[in-house]
Amino acid sequence: MDLTKEQLSEIEALRAQSSLTKRACAPQLEEILYEPFPVLDHGFIRVIDYMGDDAAVVQAARVSYGKGTKKVQSDAGLINYLLRHRHTTPFEMCEIKFHVKMPIFVARQWIRHRTANVNEYSARYSIMDKEFYIPAPGQLAAQSQSNRQGRGDVLQGDEAAEVLAMLKQDAETCYSHYEQMLNADADENVLDDSREGLARELARMNLTLNTYTQWYWKIDLHNFMHFLSLRADSHAQYEIRVYAEVMLDMLKKWMPHTYEAFSQYRIGGVHLSAKGADVVRRMLGGEKVTAEESGMSAREYREMLATLNVST
Amino acid sequence: MDLTKEQLSEIEALRAQSSLTKRACAPQLEEILYEPFPVLDHGFIRVIDYMGDDAAVVQAARVSYGKGTKKVQSDAGLINYLLRHRHTTPFEMCEIKFHVKMPIFVARQWIRHRTANVNEYSARYSIMDKEFYIPAPGQLAAQSQSNRQGRGDVLQGDEAAEVLAMLKQDAETCYSHYEQMLNADADENVLDDSREGLARELARMNLTLNTYTQWYWKIDLHNFMHFLSLRADSHAQYEIRVYAEVMLDMLKKWMPHTYEAFSQYRIGGVHLSAKGADVVRRMLGGEKVTAEESGMSAREYREMLATLNVST
Amino acid sequence: MDLTKEQLSEIEALRAQSSLTKRACAPQLEEILYEPFPVLDHGFIRVIDYMGDDAAVVQAARVSYGKGTKKVQSDAGLINYLLRHRHTTPFEMCEIKFHVKMPIFVARQWIRHRTANVNEYSARYSIMDKEFYIPAPGQLAAQSQSNRQGRGDVLQGDEAAEVLAMLKQDAETCYSHYEQMLNADADENVLDDSREGLARELARMNLTLNTYTQWYWKIDLHNFMHFLSLRADSHAQYEIRVYAEVMLDMLKKWMPHTYEAFSQYRIGGVHLSAKGADVVRRMLGGEKVTAEESGMSAREYREMLATLNVST
Amino acid sequence: MDLTKEQLSEIEALRAQSSLTKRACAPQLEEILYEPFPVLDHGFIRVIDYMGDDAAVVQAARVSYGKGTKKVQSDAGLINYLLRHRHTTPFEMCEIKFHVKMPIFVARQWIRHRTANVNEYSARYSIMDKEFYIPAPGQLAAQSQSNRQGRGDVLQGDEAAEVLAMLKQDAETCYSHYEQMLNADADENVLDDSREGLARELARMNLTLNTYTQWYWKIDLHNFMHFLSLRADSHAQYEIRVYAEVMLDMLKKWMPHTYEAFSQYRIGGVHLSAKGADVVRRMLGGEKVTAEESGMSAREYREMLATLNVST
Repeated sequence: MDLTKEQLSEIEALRAQSSLTKRACAPQLEEILYEPFPVLDHGFIRVIDYMGDDAAVVQAARVSYGKGTKKVQSDAGLINYLLRHRHTTPFEMCEIKFHVKMPIFVARQWIRHRTANVNEYSARYSIMDKEFYIPAPGQLAAQSQSNRQGRGDVLQGDEAAEVLAMLKQDAETCYSHYEQMLNADADENVLDDSREGLARELARMNLTLNTYTQWYWKIDLHNFMHFLSLRADSHAQYEIRVYAEVMLDMLKKWMPHTYEAFSQYRIGGVHLSAKGADVVRRMLGGEKVTAEESGMSAREYREMLATLNVST
Repeated sequence: MDLTKEQLSEIEALRAQSSLTKRACAPQLEEILYEPFPVLDHGFIRVIDYMGDDAAVVQAARVSYGKGTKKVQSDAGLINYLLRHRHTTPFEMCEIKFHVKMPIFVARQWIRHRTANVNEYSARYSIMDKEFYIPAPGQLAAQSQSNRQGRGDVLQGDEAAEVLAMLKQDAETCYSHYEQMLNADADENVLDDSREGLARELARMNLTLNTYTQWYWKIDLHNFMHFLSLRADSHAQYEIRVYAEVMLDMLKKWMPHTYEAFSQYRIGGVHLSAKGADVVRRMLGGEKVTAEESGMSAREYREMLATLNVST
Repeated sequence: MDLTKEQLSEIEALRAQSSLTKRACAPQLEEILYEPFPVLDHGFIRVIDYMGDDAAVVQAARVSYGKGTKKVQSDAGLINYLLRHRHTTPFEMCEIKFHVKMPIFVARQWIRHRTANVNEYSARYSIMDKEFYIPAPGQLAAQSQSNRQGRGDVLQGDEAAEVLAMLKQDAETCYSHYEQMLNADADENVLDDSREGLARELARMNLTLNTYTQWYWKIDLHNFMHFLSLRADSHAQYEIRVYAEVMLDMLKKWMPHTYEAFSQYRIGGVHLSAKGADVVRRMLGGEKVTAEESGMSAREYREMLATLNVST
Repeated sequence: MDLTKEQLSEIEALRAQSSLTKRACAPQLEEILYEPFPVLDHGFIRVIDYMGDDAAVVQAARVSYGKGTKKVQSDAGLINYLLRHRHTTPFEMCEIKFHVKMPIFVARQWIRHRTANVNEYSARYSIMDKEFYIPAPGQLAAQSQSNRQGRGDVLQGDEAAEVLAMLKQDAETCYSHYEQMLNADADENVLDDSREGLARELARMNLTLNTYTQWYWKIDLHNFMHFLSLRADSHAQYEIRVYAEVMLDMLKKWMPHTYEAFSQYRIGGVHLSAKGADVVRRMLGGEKVTAEESGMSAREYREMLATLNVST
């Protein structure tokens, strides 16, 4: 994580300030506000602002239910109920804003979540910093043989060394040519007065996809949990999952009850198809059900049994 | 504006609380937080929460522009620039949440703005309050003869009196039958133990469209300004415009610089079509341009001249 | 279902036309294009246009998977895979447009699905037709005692008769006063030349919520299935569910493979929470698990066992 | 534009097919359906499907206006009216779907338009093709001195030659190392049986941002026009503008009346701020107004006079 002195002192100043507010506050999240949490080799994520807390979810739900919820339930109970029954609108009433620094290929996955607001560093307007993601040796995974979009074993020996060398070398070379084309360095110092320098919006195309970019990213709590359920999942690519995992901790500090409900009903849940549910019903009734009798494809059947710890 | 004792004491408690926060604060908006502002005969609007201030817009823009904006401009200047050039994303980085009470026919217009979050009081779940909108005599306008969706002169005398009487009578009757169908009053007291009472989700269909409903409504600053530009406009129906006008004041307290820029570049601005711009260019060059020569329709031409204070 | 002669002959003309197109076609849906299907007492739904078919979903998925899907799977198999793994973007590549006529209180639920496009009949601009929804006697359900937003037994005898009488009477009276206020009937004939007539945008507030409105409604296939999974569900209010059920048949005609996958993986599926999945694993392993040991609330536990046909 | 033999014969087959449909058809657009239009050195854009035509916009508007529009206006007149008054919903009732191939840095700008549906080629799943964008010599522009995100003069001589050489060399080297890391070529042939090959999701990070990607992109007519108004504008980067210009022609074939209205009221229009409108009013009234008297900033004032062809 590489922050300039300037950035660090700005963060310190923000963290030192404090004002009185009548708004809902999340005390645990306040403690880490603005603070950068390192992710990957040069990335970070920090919470810039938030709106609402667990009680704000409850308050929004009570508007909908009117007099009906007066006596009924505790806050935690109501939050569980809402998540369990997919009553999503009260969770849309809270909002969180992050500052994230990540490699461009990660940003390209991330931006596919459209229900969020984004201000990204503009390489048309400014010069990109010289920072690239180079995987740690333990992350240099081979292509999975069984899953086209997955990873297999970690590469070893010469093959690993060569991959690392190429990644480093190519990123360096491309960046150094980027500066030459611009006729400027990252601090906007002109390199050679006799040349003009290529337009920034053009020169950027020479950078590699592991170059770091950064953005402000704001999202409501409902869509944030949807993002986390996809990106903190074991099928997500490691390089975005590590961001999601840090954000999962931030969710816990922001909204302890909602975090519990989310862990219980989303993250740890299991979805059965119609045929799958039928097989489980028959098994619980004492029947033995073979793959053929299940009506499911062999793969689906196998995956379901694995999920339910049933040996075949 | 009819708030129950319970609601009033809840509001008082919220307004009395205060916490320390490291977040951006908008001091003028803090002063009116939670406070209900009356609109129409029984409606209100109050700010429940907000995220960000003028500086947060600037901060988000500076992420995009990177090093490029270091020296350039004052905050107010940058906000003007952003609004003038329709750089909308920094304005999406702020958020505001309202509690609004309004007649159902107003809510039906309002909900057409889709980029917002809503929790509405549920008439499937709870019993609606006995509150209807009855226009003030000065608002009992006749149908406009020139504009199918506009108002003409205010009705007078008997016609006005009869309209008011019908509105009151029908709302009362429908509500009283609603209670009879439910076999319950607004406080959920059973009326007659020998009857079952119709399901709430059905009984509600007997209410008139001037019955009051309420909701929490949350929106980002960019979409909020879009809402205001349409609904605080003179072509908007009076009954929604009065809400927008109160919110315009709230915007001013929340974001003084953004409010100024919005007044200057959106609210007070004039849009010329390609042909209209051409006519203005010729006129400024000293030419006289007739309606025929303008290439515009007679109506468009007339409207443009009126906007530009040119007499024909 | 009340269509004017004019509308019926327009529909006939549209159904008689045919053009050659190079676009993907859905032959079964073509057969019912423009045709109104009656719903409730005066409502209808008809398909006005569509884009794509099952093959278009597959084609979009193959762009994403590139060379990888060449050999792999049949179209039906790929569609199953996509739905099972919640790969939603290929389903967003198809679109359908409906013309729907429904009571206003149904329209108010429907519009909460924001990811759709809507053009509704404007009561600011035009005079509403004299058509109200009056439930069939078999739908006059009492309020459920166990579920605040549900229905219990059907009302009988005098209570039922009185409810029906009130619904009819109030709708009639309110509409007749609406005409009086407007000083015009539904065909825009002036009633009394000596009066001005109240503005349409005001008079409409006197109508009851069972008055019929209509709109064009366009949605992509992914969001359409989300709508159907909520509104064709047994917890949805009967008056919107009957529309969803007709649309479910239309989906079947439009996209036979997608419809099958949707029935298998969404409609008929079962979701287990983390604790629920744990209980099922233990039961399948031969353990007896009591409610207390499950860690679930008594209600959740009971509901899960009922879903899985396990008697307690 | 590089299409494989396989793709070309698929396109030919699609263009040869034709079915009867009852749906609205756009005859001029049918003629170019599926046909790839070359953009930049290896890119293309082609229309894959569409829903609706000019008449469908009108039809949706007439639902809203009900009886009110019976006599009023021709289709073209109504479309002009709708665009002029920013009645956007009828334009949302039409939809178009494209297949686009473009450099990744262009795709990154493009994806910021969130109200669209996207299926992009997945570099996690498949191997990217060896195709990079190298600007034509006439597009090798220097950085603008006055506009941080603009272009100045075209680079000449040695500087131009060196830039081109670097762009070509770096893209080639990075791609060749990409293949080495993968231990596979673009056709998925293994290069060296003794090695495993890095996971695709990792190897892709070594590619440069001028590598071509492709996607299906679907959008409604309203948001399509918004995209065009920003991206066919002279301030847009050349490399995305050339795509927008081809799409502008496609819009003309699809929707001749809407295209005319769009040219008149959006593309060619001029927006005046409140102060700007005031200055124009005074000038048309015969006053001379200096920059100081205008209340505008010097830059705004200068820009406005230039737009209105007024010499200072």
